Amino acid sequence: MSYTINRTIAGASLDDVDARARAALSNHGFGVLTEIDVTSTLKQKIGAEIDGYRILGACNPQMAHEALEIEPRAGAMLPCNVILREVADGVEVSAIDPVASMQAINNQSLKSVASEVRSMLAAVIEEI
Amino acid sequence: MSYTINRTIAGASLDDVDARARAALSNHGFGVLTEIDVTSTLKQKIGAEIDGYRILGACNPQMAHEALEIEPRAGAMLPCNVILREVADGVEVSAIDPVASMQAINNQSLKSVASEVRSMLAAVIEEI
Repeated sequence: MSYTINRTIAGASLDDVDARARAALSNHGFGVLTEIDVTSTLKQKIGAEIDGYRILGACNPQMAHEALEIEPRAGAMLPCNVILREVADGVEVSAIDPVASMQAINNQSLKSVASEVRSMLAAVIEEI
Repeated sequence: MSYTINRTIAGASLDDVDARARAALSNHGFGVLTEIDVTSTLKQKIGAEIDGYRILGACNPQMAHEALEIEPRAGAMLPCNVILREVADGVEVSAIDPVASMQAINNQSLKSVASEVRSMLAAVIEEI
């Protein structure tokens, strides 16, 4: 089972894909609540050198509220991450598949919310 | 399968448990890279009213680096969340169980890193 929804944007820069990802997320009702520059964090904390890597924490507040009403601890798996990684031919963007990440939660109602969010994130990735 | 490691701190306030959680995380090599005040975010975005709820995004940079070397897209499941929720008798603190959340990733080496991080987070929760 794949745990992310992926697409590579050939020849693009990280900043460009970042802006396009935020616009597409916004079009589908997701705000970006957190951002981690993994590259600079690892460099600063442990001196490690990795290619450009960012994690955007995206949240659709209606869907998040619904998930928390159904399963109060589901916040342990929120927000939905969209990662941006420099790869050989451009930037790969990957959204978490919430159905995959939440498979350890035994709650059918939550699975149906997760499935709806997966479709929304697939549309976001397509649109970037 | 439980997907979080939980403990309720009876009679404590959210701010108190927040400070204790950060101190315990720090003692085990985790920095807090992100913080989401879920209560105020949902109130502001959609007018929903929920009890006190915070998500701390914790990261042990050595372990995160190791995970990304093994599985480049594992950042879709980082950082490790620690959630703080007001409950009837105090505050419940729950750390994600990375073995559970990463079970959709078919990578044995990653599972062993996740298992090590689970032990570290269990020690954090115990210490709070």
